[in-house]
Amino acid sequence: MIEDVVELAKRRGFFVQSAGVYGGVSGFYTFGPQGAALKQNVEDTWRDRFAIQEGNMEVDAPTVMPEAVFEASGHLDTFDDMHVECPECGSNHRADHIVEDNTDIEEAESLPAAEVEELIAEYELVCPDCGTGLAGQVIDDFNLMFETNIGPGSASPGYLRPETAQGIFVEFPQLAEYARNQLPFGVTQIGRAYRNEISPRKSLLRVREFTQAELELFVDPEEDEPTLDRVRDVTAPFYPADEQEAADGEIREATIGEVVDDGTVADPWIAYYLGAAAQWYESIGVDMDRFRFRQHLAGELAHYAADCWDAEAEVDGDWIELAGFAYRGDYDLSKHADHSGEEFTVFKQYDDPVTVERATVDPDMSALGPEFGGAAADVAAALESLVERDPDAFEAASESGDPVTVEVDGETYEVPIEQTGYAVEEVTESGEHVSPHVVEPSFGVDRALYTALDHCYREDEVDGESRTYLALPAGVAPTTVGVFPLMDRDGMGDRAHEVVDDLRDAGLAVTYDDSGAIGRRYRRQDEVGTPFCVTVDYDTLGEGDDPELEGTVTVRERDSTDQRRVPVESLAETLRNLRDGALTFDDI
Amino acid sequence: MIEDVVELAKRRGFFVQSAGVYGGVSGFYTFGPQGAALKQNVEDTWRDRFAIQEGNMEVDAPTVMPEAVFEASGHLDTFDDMHVECPECGSNHRADHIVEDNTDIEEAESLPAAEVEELIAEYELVCPDCGTGLAGQVIDDFNLMFETNIGPGSASPGYLRPETAQGIFVEFPQLAEYARNQLPFGVTQIGRAYRNEISPRKSLLRVREFTQAELELFVDPEEDEPTLDRVRDVTAPFYPADEQEAADGEIREATIGEVVDDGTVADPWIAYYLGAAAQWYESIGVDMDRFRFRQHLAGELAHYAADCWDAEAEVDGDWIELAGFAYRGDYDLSKHADHSGEEFTVFKQYDDPVTVERATVDPDMSALGPEFGGAAADVAAALESLVERDPDAFEAASESGDPVTVEVDGETYEVPIEQTGYAVEEVTESGEHVSPHVVEPSFGVDRALYTALDHCYREDEVDGESRTYLALPAGVAPTTVGVFPLMDRDGMGDRAHEVVDDLRDAGLAVTYDDSGAIGRRYRRQDEVGTPFCVTVDYDTLGEGDDPELEGTVTVRERDSTDQRRVPVESLAETLRNLRDGALTFDDI
Repeated sequence: MIEDVVELAKRRGFFVQSAGVYGGVSGFYTFGPQGAALKQNVEDTWRDRFAIQEGNMEVDAPTVMPEAVFEASGHLDTFDDMHVECPECGSNHRADHIVEDNTDIEEAESLPAAEVEELIAEYELVCPDCGTGLAGQVIDDFNLMFETNIGPGSASPGYLRPETAQGIFVEFPQLAEYARNQLPFGVTQIGRAYRNEISPRKSLLRVREFTQAELELFVDPEEDEPTLDRVRDVTAPFYPADEQEAADGEIREATIGEVVDDGTVADPWIAYYLGAAAQWYESIGVDMDRFRFRQHLAGELAHYAADCWDAEAEVDGDWIELAGFAYRGDYDLSKHADHSGEEFTVFKQYDDPVTVERATVDPDMSALGPEFGGAAADVAAALESLVERDPDAFEAASESGDPVTVEVDGETYEVPIEQTGYAVEEVTESGEHVSPHVVEPSFGVDRALYTALDHCYREDEVDGESRTYLALPAGVAPTTVGVFPLMDRDGMGDRAHEVVDDLRDAGLAVTYDDSGAIGRRYRRQDEVGTPFCVTVDYDTLGEGDDPELEGTVTVRERDSTDQRRVPVESLAETLRNLRDGALTFDDI
Repeated sequence: MIEDVVELAKRRGFFVQSAGVYGGVSGFYTFGPQGAALKQNVEDTWRDRFAIQEGNMEVDAPTVMPEAVFEASGHLDTFDDMHVECPECGSNHRADHIVEDNTDIEEAESLPAAEVEELIAEYELVCPDCGTGLAGQVIDDFNLMFETNIGPGSASPGYLRPETAQGIFVEFPQLAEYARNQLPFGVTQIGRAYRNEISPRKSLLRVREFTQAELELFVDPEEDEPTLDRVRDVTAPFYPADEQEAADGEIREATIGEVVDDGTVADPWIAYYLGAAAQWYESIGVDMDRFRFRQHLAGELAHYAADCWDAEAEVDGDWIELAGFAYRGDYDLSKHADHSGEEFTVFKQYDDPVTVERATVDPDMSALGPEFGGAAADVAAALESLVERDPDAFEAASESGDPVTVEVDGETYEVPIEQTGYAVEEVTESGEHVSPHVVEPSFGVDRALYTALDHCYREDEVDGESRTYLALPAGVAPTTVGVFPLMDRDGMGDRAHEVVDDLRDAGLAVTYDDSGAIGRRYRRQDEVGTPFCVTVDYDTLGEGDDPELEGTVTVRERDSTDQRRVPVESLAETLRNLRDGALTFDDI
């Protein structure tokens, strides 16, 4: 079945492995005319739903980023897969996959490399390509970022971003200004991301270059909550962690309102986006009966993530991950704040200024200098740091008369309280610096497209002949309308071309076809998912049997193959309404 | 002036140097919310004009491509700049730029490296960063492609594509099938391209990662010609090679029809796209008084290009290249055909089959074998090759009785005519294989955006206060409508939010702002080029002085600052028509 989809994808221009004339390279795909249009439409509907309708900002950052970014994000250290090379044929493999594919062990990815080495020896596992035993081969951590050099020499390494998100996080200080420092605010990005897979497989599901659509929502962890109204009644299948762990666990249909109220989804922001995602996936053709939201098990969670849910779809008998929805806390921004030394906070204005007591020091350098020599400045700095962290230490010293103790470079220094200049002042504060938390819905565009193609693939019989068609929703189909003259003669071709121009002017994606029998032309459009076809015939020209049909054309619906006569005058509007869902075919 | 644009670009979210918190890396820019929206709109209008309206196919290929592609395209060998490293501070420079910037010599790029080395010594040129003399430093060819490794190890090098075009050329055999082997057909692609500049400069004009919009039109060199109708009357400034070389040469205004008729632009396809490009650049805000089409001089032409024109714009006193329009012949496809061994042709069906005489050979191996031993098979192959190339050689041998002479590996072999099996047969052919020629309009998206910003930057005075605004055309402005409540109270805020929802549902890009005085909110929208602002006031609610104004809002035009009252009911349609140019503000 999935083979049929992949074959159709190549034959009709959805996607092919790239550079096939040179043998291709695993993990790189080119979207042909149909696929590029479908992908564009999928991206546009995502943009509309997650950026425009939500009032979020969209940005567009480079795909090549400098090393400092990935030092901070942790990708340089930990974005690895376990790699083993065959000593005989030199082919490269994921060691954990070799274990998973040939033993009963699941999730070998989470085991230490040493243990995987032992398992390979114990089970006498072999190279999948040539059958040579892999026991004793070293398993190394292979970083999945593509590395390159920026400019001549190797002084300035760069990496192809493994996710679009970092291009948002590093610009946070600037973005917060654009948002006028008002939380919550959201920033989206649609663009390429890269993962240098050791051995890519499964067509578009595990590729080295792909497109992500990510949203980073920055919230005040103590204040912001979403209004759930827009998605409260959206229904979706949920598969929470406890159900996955239970012997008889099952997937439960529920509304967003229900899963928030009963605590199935702990964070309301996550719940909100699950609702929006369910609506969006359905709108692009994903079958909701082959779809679920699965909560990460405790062992799957990244250490910084409070909760995480995946959107998953069933494709070819497997559940594949389509999107992730994570509550990431302040992990990302605090990492970049630490590494860059810049502020990654927003200043939250209070409704009314508040007066607070603040402990301060003003070290007496004329005493510290002679006492500590070259270390005096560092001691003073340590005192300033201590009073912010632990003012009680000074309060206690004031009462007891003991000196204040600080540590500098492993040495302990004692400073009499009167030399610290300790004081408590009343200050008026107009607001405070808040470290925003991040809620991250992250979507894979290629996988969404692949799933929609698979879920929309249909075979049926029309007029006694078998037919293949893609039941893609009209809003994302690569072409909205196919326009045919019954034959390219007697002026029907010219008239059809006029119709094409009109429809294109109205912003519709139109294709013209005058080649072969009408039935064959319908089949061609069915196969690429064109929802509507228009035929210009003798009746249109007023030269048919029924003079009343002059100025009308036949509109044929893909799925039902039903036909209606529609005046050319209102054709563009009718088709636009059909595409946008403001009209059903039965309404005509 | 350009500094004002760059400052505005950063302050208001058009573009900033990326990863500024880590000090940034030259040549990489992030488009903020305004810039990303503007870029998206620029790309969409290009897609509409050069893909959809022309009926061309759009594809979407990977940015990482394998080495074989660039061996064939020539980029691996020749996509170089002259690099010199400072022996003192280690900074990297373009050697030709150092010569051009510090001597009267122009076009140092075209000189041999040895000559540039001599010039550096002769003029005692120094490192621009630290002033150390560069005489005696080696100038090497630095390849401008970013290199990386695909998968573990270095067995499979990959490169970030230096142009989107190669992603189209390598898929030609498949694309020709999608086009049902009918010439001409066009394929477009909008996407990232990369150029590992030695020392990037000039903001968005010379960057390491950028976006291209390219069109590859495949034509039958003996048959296809465009219909010029759509662009015949388009006027543009032309600067042909002869005018550039003349002492008193000048730029001439002319229509596309004129430059085709008088031969200024030799190839009508090129002329057609110059016309389309002039229309498009004007539609995105480029000032046609600071724009020209400049023909390449003979010395600038790539060796395979028959003719090439650039679109250029004046920015900050310099003419910068915006786009190139080249007639590339069969260079690209034949290179890939040679390197891959695949067919890069289309089969052109004749209207009626034709009968032709074809000379063939059928070498008598029972004679050649004993005579030539191990070389017999090669001799037979050489005979087969010769009869295709030069059947007259066999005809002459038949008449004279002399043997036929072929050469194999430098050795000459003589074969009696009767052993060659030479014959002339009548064969019926239904068509022929045609090697398409390529016409390539290639646009830089970032430069188009940068030029539009520069050309639309305005300062004037409104109500006695100075104002900065971007006179961007409504069709590309990041935001089409700003919606304001006069104040956020008495229900005006809620009503304004309803208006926002309505306008967004109608597909308009809308922003809401209730912060600060109305005048300040206008200024904010002026600065980012929002063409229309809508204000909801007491009159809208029916609570103003004039009850007739109930249900209407004020619409204010950016450039004129004129205002009109428009019913909320027809607001979306009015604004959509204003954006699409179906209505002018004076029509309201």
